[in-house]
Amino acid sequence: MSIKLPLKALVTGGAGFLGTHLCRRLLEEGYEVTCLDNLFTGMKSHIEQFADNPRFSFVQHDITQPYRGQFDEIYNLACPASPIHYQRNPLETLWTSIYGMRNCLDLARDTGAKVLHASTSEIYGDPMVHPQVESYWGNVNTIGIRSCYDEGKRVAETMATEYRRCHGVDVRMVRIFNTYGPYMHPQDGRVISNFIMQALNNENITIYGDGSQTRSFQYCDDLIEAMRRFMTLPKSAVDAFFPMGYCDNHNVGVCTNLPSRESRPANGHPRVPVLNTGNPGEYTIKELAEAVLKLLPESTSKIIYEPLPGDDPKKRKPDITLAKELLGWEPKVSLLEGLPKTIDYFKKFPLV
Amino acid sequence: MSIKLPLKALVTGGAGFLGTHLCRRLLEEGYEVTCLDNLFTGMKSHIEQFADNPRFSFVQHDITQPYRGQFDEIYNLACPASPIHYQRNPLETLWTSIYGMRNCLDLARDTGAKVLHASTSEIYGDPMVHPQVESYWGNVNTIGIRSCYDEGKRVAETMATEYRRCHGVDVRMVRIFNTYGPYMHPQDGRVISNFIMQALNNENITIYGDGSQTRSFQYCDDLIEAMRRFMTLPKSAVDAFFPMGYCDNHNVGVCTNLPSRESRPANGHPRVPVLNTGNPGEYTIKELAEAVLKLLPESTSKIIYEPLPGDDPKKRKPDITLAKELLGWEPKVSLLEGLPKTIDYFKKFPLV
Repeated sequence: MSIKLPLKALVTGGAGFLGTHLCRRLLEEGYEVTCLDNLFTGMKSHIEQFADNPRFSFVQHDITQPYRGQFDEIYNLACPASPIHYQRNPLETLWTSIYGMRNCLDLARDTGAKVLHASTSEIYGDPMVHPQVESYWGNVNTIGIRSCYDEGKRVAETMATEYRRCHGVDVRMVRIFNTYGPYMHPQDGRVISNFIMQALNNENITIYGDGSQTRSFQYCDDLIEAMRRFMTLPKSAVDAFFPMGYCDNHNVGVCTNLPSRESRPANGHPRVPVLNTGNPGEYTIKELAEAVLKLLPESTSKIIYEPLPGDDPKKRKPDITLAKELLGWEPKVSLLEGLPKTIDYFKKFPLV
Repeated sequence: MSIKLPLKALVTGGAGFLGTHLCRRLLEEGYEVTCLDNLFTGMKSHIEQFADNPRFSFVQHDITQPYRGQFDEIYNLACPASPIHYQRNPLETLWTSIYGMRNCLDLARDTGAKVLHASTSEIYGDPMVHPQVESYWGNVNTIGIRSCYDEGKRVAETMATEYRRCHGVDVRMVRIFNTYGPYMHPQDGRVISNFIMQALNNENITIYGDGSQTRSFQYCDDLIEAMRRFMTLPKSAVDAFFPMGYCDNHNVGVCTNLPSRESRPANGHPRVPVLNTGNPGEYTIKELAEAVLKLLPESTSKIIYEPLPGDDPKKRKPDITLAKELLGWEPKVSLLEGLPKTIDYFKKFPLV
């Protein structure tokens, strides 16, 4: 008679916005969860809810330093993701992406763990292709104010690609588009948290421009569902879906006939396991502001309009065809369902 | 009466193709030169010519490990640059770009040295803008066969940018386009070395396609001249030419009003010191093959044509307006002057 031991998961950035949701989900599924966080943007208060669970442990650790242990699954979620956080210390942001990824991949290579890496729609930068497909290469500045995040995340994808090719590490990546929900930082400067906090504080809700520009918002639970589905697929199914291509296995020998750029597979799938995860539904900024005010009828906030800054507004919308095909997944939570849960969470914060 | 001591320069990758030329130039100018190389693609035979010079020293060292010392100038040239070399060990290529850059920048931060970083036209990838200007962001795959080089070099630019912004390191970057000359590796798989070696070996010279596709070739001496001019400019002149822009100094405080992407300066200059260095003159591949054969009349090689591989040929041509403006520099050595010198060098190699 065999006793089934719980699977062991390591979650870097486990006390952050998404990490907290993922830890809860993994615990609900019976996992033994080790949550790593340096508490730069993560918060201990997020994970206090798991303190009594014997299958949960928290280690205050910075993933730029190696961490060792035997895990079945590693989820690499560590990195401040909103500009006001990641630009506070741009070099730490870079090191978190680079060394954090390397430390996860080294651990996976040495122990056989599989890895889910949280990449980002920011690797597409200011996209020239709409909606964004995984085979789009992006439009990113190497030497700008956002490069510490964007380029760090881009090179992390490259590292994951090469560990898979050179060391056989089973690594899967999700490119996460705009996501919201409880445990977001109320002062992270993003439009959803801005609007909610302004409404709760009875301050004017500021729209830049006429508010007709659109955004896509994914509720956190939808993302966690996609991550879990992706991670539970057998490796054979993943490898079949993302075919290694021409010259992809030339890691040891010398390839004398490299194409100038690799040709793309006929089916349009990227050669490494990477999936967009986001909500393709679009809302105007004005609709968002009105929805927030409708859900907070007691607020005395008014919508005001300010001139749009000179540079183009960023517009991103995921093409989620591949995730639908491979995972049978699509987002289920509409903005009108997700927003009240987020507002309830923000109500717990002291008003400023 | 003060004695003028020689300036001290550190050259990483100093025994490589470009490193050898740079070491020679610096020695000619009276510098004390420390040449670092792990000899992965660099060769001791290149630098034997300096062995008797008391101002030259060679240290076999891998720049992925820190190197300490007091230098006035650091030239970061370490990284295999041709696909057949950099794909032999893609992760080492990544680490060389990443840790190599970090180690140079840490040393500069700690000692006050200024840095010239050898970036590359590969950061533009398969460009959608012709010719390439420095403000173009590039078109690069994060998860392809060439990403280990391209993305490593891209994130190195980001690191340099942030060390300048956060630590005040005086770092200057050149994006080097296709360059040739003596000390190139005869088997590096590039078109110039291929053609010359084929002609010397009396093998057929293989052109893919009809040979009407064009390439730009910069002779090594022109590049070294640009590097030296850039490095000898006072910091004030460099800073005036590359203006720090909106939000560029928000490294400590929190910026609450970040643009979605930074706006570009009105003069089109990038915000950090980066210059294209290459030869904008274009030759067709057929012209190149014919020029090689003309210079080697004793060769029995014939030009043969093979089908072009399915993917688009890479085309890159530098816009060198900024380098002209700032350095008063432009390439002087034509292909018909540079090619004979390169052929003379390759003649020294045993034929295969």
